[in-house]
Amino acid sequence: MKITSTKITDKFWQNYRQLVKEELIPYQWSVINDEISVNIQRENANSLDAVEKSHAIQNLKIAAGLATGEFYGFWFQDSDVYKWLETVAYALRYAPDTDLQQKADDLIQLIAQAQQPDGYLDTYIQLTTPQNKFKHVSFSHELYCMGHYIEAGVAYYQTTGNQTALDIAVKMATCLDNHFGPEVGKLHGYPGHPEIELALAKLADVTGDTRFTNLAKYMIDMRGTTPNFFAEQTKTRQAENITDMFDNMDPDPQAKYFQNQAPVREMKTAEGHAVRMTYLLTGMAHIARQTHDQSLIEACQRLWNNITDRRMYITGGIGSTVSGEAFTYDYDLPNDTMYAETCASCAMTFFAKQMQELTPDRKYADLMERELFNGTISGMSLDGKHFFYVNPLSVDPVASANDPTKSHVKVQRADWFGCACCPPNLARLVASVDQYIYTVKDDTIYVDQFIGNHTTFDNGLTIDQSGNYPWQGNITLKVTATQPSQSTLAIRIPTWSQPNYQLAINGVAQSIELNNGYAKISQVWSGTTELTLTLDMSARKTQADPKVTADIGKLAVERGPLVYCLEQADNGSQLPQLALPLTASFIEKTDENSLAIPFVRLQAEGTRIKEDSDALYSTATVRSVEATELNFIPYFAWANRTAGEMEVWVAKQG
Amino acid sequence: MKITSTKITDKFWQNYRQLVKEELIPYQWSVINDEISVNIQRENANSLDAVEKSHAIQNLKIAAGLATGEFYGFWFQDSDVYKWLETVAYALRYAPDTDLQQKADDLIQLIAQAQQPDGYLDTYIQLTTPQNKFKHVSFSHELYCMGHYIEAGVAYYQTTGNQTALDIAVKMATCLDNHFGPEVGKLHGYPGHPEIELALAKLADVTGDTRFTNLAKYMIDMRGTTPNFFAEQTKTRQAENITDMFDNMDPDPQAKYFQNQAPVREMKTAEGHAVRMTYLLTGMAHIARQTHDQSLIEACQRLWNNITDRRMYITGGIGSTVSGEAFTYDYDLPNDTMYAETCASCAMTFFAKQMQELTPDRKYADLMERELFNGTISGMSLDGKHFFYVNPLSVDPVASANDPTKSHVKVQRADWFGCACCPPNLARLVASVDQYIYTVKDDTIYVDQFIGNHTTFDNGLTIDQSGNYPWQGNITLKVTATQPSQSTLAIRIPTWSQPNYQLAINGVAQSIELNNGYAKISQVWSGTTELTLTLDMSARKTQADPKVTADIGKLAVERGPLVYCLEQADNGSQLPQLALPLTASFIEKTDENSLAIPFVRLQAEGTRIKEDSDALYSTATVRSVEATELNFIPYFAWANRTAGEMEVWVAKQG
Repeated sequence: MKITSTKITDKFWQNYRQLVKEELIPYQWSVINDEISVNIQRENANSLDAVEKSHAIQNLKIAAGLATGEFYGFWFQDSDVYKWLETVAYALRYAPDTDLQQKADDLIQLIAQAQQPDGYLDTYIQLTTPQNKFKHVSFSHELYCMGHYIEAGVAYYQTTGNQTALDIAVKMATCLDNHFGPEVGKLHGYPGHPEIELALAKLADVTGDTRFTNLAKYMIDMRGTTPNFFAEQTKTRQAENITDMFDNMDPDPQAKYFQNQAPVREMKTAEGHAVRMTYLLTGMAHIARQTHDQSLIEACQRLWNNITDRRMYITGGIGSTVSGEAFTYDYDLPNDTMYAETCASCAMTFFAKQMQELTPDRKYADLMERELFNGTISGMSLDGKHFFYVNPLSVDPVASANDPTKSHVKVQRADWFGCACCPPNLARLVASVDQYIYTVKDDTIYVDQFIGNHTTFDNGLTIDQSGNYPWQGNITLKVTATQPSQSTLAIRIPTWSQPNYQLAINGVAQSIELNNGYAKISQVWSGTTELTLTLDMSARKTQADPKVTADIGKLAVERGPLVYCLEQADNGSQLPQLALPLTASFIEKTDENSLAIPFVRLQAEGTRIKEDSDALYSTATVRSVEATELNFIPYFAWANRTAGEMEVWVAKQG
Repeated sequence: MKITSTKITDKFWQNYRQLVKEELIPYQWSVINDEISVNIQRENANSLDAVEKSHAIQNLKIAAGLATGEFYGFWFQDSDVYKWLETVAYALRYAPDTDLQQKADDLIQLIAQAQQPDGYLDTYIQLTTPQNKFKHVSFSHELYCMGHYIEAGVAYYQTTGNQTALDIAVKMATCLDNHFGPEVGKLHGYPGHPEIELALAKLADVTGDTRFTNLAKYMIDMRGTTPNFFAEQTKTRQAENITDMFDNMDPDPQAKYFQNQAPVREMKTAEGHAVRMTYLLTGMAHIARQTHDQSLIEACQRLWNNITDRRMYITGGIGSTVSGEAFTYDYDLPNDTMYAETCASCAMTFFAKQMQELTPDRKYADLMERELFNGTISGMSLDGKHFFYVNPLSVDPVASANDPTKSHVKVQRADWFGCACCPPNLARLVASVDQYIYTVKDDTIYVDQFIGNHTTFDNGLTIDQSGNYPWQGNITLKVTATQPSQSTLAIRIPTWSQPNYQLAINGVAQSIELNNGYAKISQVWSGTTELTLTLDMSARKTQADPKVTADIGKLAVERGPLVYCLEQADNGSQLPQLALPLTASFIEKTDENSLAIPFVRLQAEGTRIKEDSDALYSTATVRSVEATELNFIPYFAWANRTAGEMEVWVAKQG
């Protein structure tokens, strides 16, 4: 069984998807074509200088021989174009647009012209150091860029049938297959920034060509083996007297930064650059499914557990430090210095989806939900025009302005970034969010997400899901069978709602023992069956494992799938002086006016410390506090008003 | 009235002073003479590479024409030698040693030979870029090194009468006076690293030569004026085609790093590199006293208040960030990422002493005490052989090992440092701690510190101070007058002991209204008068201003002048899971065995969170806790056992 079409009818996501179609796609198009002047933000103070313009399309034109000039931008600038194209591929499915499709068709022609006869395409290398192809893949991003093209080409082919889009991808993958592999004369290695692995897996799915699966598996298997491939490449460059600009950037070739410190099947913890780690894991899980590789599945599960049990913020954010944009160590989850890159949350969503495809389990779908409703969409403003790279859980504008170690923690979203990875990554996720609603495995349809939609399956079933999620907990699934059809509908009961939920079939309450967190209904479906699910949308107070030092004595507030936060705009300054009693009850208020979308605000009686002394240090006393109303808004919606403080974790009173 | 001699009889400080004399002085002598191989630690991961040897004496020999070779080491390497010499000058006062004195005499001859005829001495410039003298004083440290020599030369002259030692200093200061000043053709500026100002003030005190006061005042007055002197020097270098290695190090010439953002009288907050700021303030306060400059006095007071009211750790540590080793902003006092350099606490002690000399007030002597018993001596191990550069208030070895943003927070003291500023700075402070016990102003002797001593005054008074401080609160001051003498004895009543103290004269309890925190006894002293002071040594629980986010909901424990801390060696790991009730009472235990010195341990009944769930995030509940004994040791003595966690601030239970 498989899905034949999905159309999202959900108000919450329709809004985001319209922003992507109407704001982000045209805006990014202008940026990559240098049509507008953009206020580009350096993503952090320690980072490379921001570019002043994108030049990404121009680089392709020069490579294609259609323009003259020099390469400009980051060496991975090509990927901006490809992520735009991938987003367009998904957006055309829900918002057909012949003008946009023509732009994309033309772009594909340009890409085809820029691609070399052997399939190679990387404008940085072609225009600056053509002799250095695949000579320094720890840092070059050649495979990263081609991977992003392959994802885009596959998606665009699937949407439009554009054969050239797919042919370019196949040629690229063939080029890589000609250069990498176990055979004598090929490179026995893998790239510094994983991405190609997951892209090759997608290409194998659409073409059925196992060469691509095998190549990705080879790269995954070689990773972390001895001799160290990056060190070997360094020796080769030295022998051949090749130098390049990456020589001064390269960390230790065996650094955890590269997920290169051990073979992937021996890794016990998620290490290094968080996006690289999770892109790698996404590819590993997809290849494990294609190859039925049990030890690879186990590696994925082990690393999944390490991330979600010990190294993840409540918002789904990952990457506890700006230094290397990386994982650090178990339970190290500082709220004010973390990285929690938007890209990393997107990548974690990709990984979760692949794990769900492998072995469906509520924990994967729960996490997709946590990412989709919190740590990913927090990366974009509610007007679709401003973006976060870093998604903090505790913000003080005075700290960001004055403490160099927090200068990467921005208090307002930027127009764009020099290293523009995050906005288009979020755009392609939002534009393809329909792919996260259901997972079909054998004869079972797993209802993973509560996002209103109309979906058809190839066995003649149709599901109309509706509701007002994430604000209300009533979800209706209308299952229509054009012909009687035996199959299983597995409905996720979110962990946060258990045990307080009701499920009814045609109005008759059901009591179904959950299986891996799903309520499974196996029957011959005929006519229309109405399933109604009622989830417990009571606001919840959440605590962290006390090994998370940063959260000791603190509470987070959640409601449904949403993490909430305190903002200065609602609560005044000095947010750390506020406290929430463990016994506090919440008042829910639908707020139609404060933000660009209606949302449910949560209010509770709390306290604020009275500052009754000016002494920096004084004899400890029972702190005087005054009662005050605490006013929470959804985390994803923070920083859409005046810049100010924000806190996800609030002190527990008493 | 003035002090004619002081001999420390105090057990606590005799131990430290013996370590300086018997361990530190010979050890540093070996280091600067490259006689031993030292395990030198880089002070932080972002810093310049450590040197592999000191070479400091060898640099002087090469400059003196007594050896051949090239300059090696940091460009401020000379100062290591001078701080050694200054420490020797003080140590010879309490531990005469003809061999050591001979070494120092020989060193002074060497320095005299290395000094150029015009008085200039900086081996880095002389041996590498002699054409660049005073061309790049924002970063060159020429005036810094000469300032340290002047301090050493003055001290050594005062101890031994060695005239050459003083002559070198006068020649240096004359050289500087010839190059800096308002006259046409001179440099209208000041150095990037303050130090020369306080040194010139000392030289003026000993020589009576107001040229040196005027030069220091000029540099202080010019600081932060327009046009920016460092920017002007840059223009001059560019015009003269002069480049040097500092070109790549220089921050913005008007950066707060240099205390250069405004004229000192307009500064409202302490900014930039904490050691630079406090060296500058020490010089400002001294010059203000020499010149009776009221606006300069007010600037010192304003900046004093800003530091002590808003930017200082309870240990006396200053410098909230490793980035620039700098002040950040009001109430930003993170306990685990701070710098709190040993040098900065030493410098704050110097500044406090100068403020006390200006206008005696308990707050200055209180702070000297806080620094002397906490943030300075924490920089040295109890065996006198290992040193901290950074003095954290919260340590987790796992964090230091795995989080690059905490790699500067060491969990054990190092043998030595590439940039070896801190150990000799602490050494010279300990060796001269006798100078901090009394302040004599007009006819008043201020008893600032409770450090056992025998001191004579030029009016025939003798004070024998005794006790077992900081462990016990009974202090005896035996005042003997060889002839009847009218004067005032002002005894500091530490703020922490007020109002619980008793003062008796010849066994008769006194009730004296305090004046600026001092109990003043004005009388004609004759024969022997015994004053007994009993301070309240009850352990105290202290809280921070709730604007200090890092300390909200936490308590610090103090007893007498000492800040206490929890160490893993006594309390197990996961110290942040421990809590101390506000109502807890302490048991005091004298511990003769755990550390190299006997000390008072504090024990209290507290709690430890029970980890009853493995979930990273779970529904908030009343935390289960188990009763546990909390075991505190003095902060200065931490990290003298197995490496482990340490916390000054402990959670408040309930």
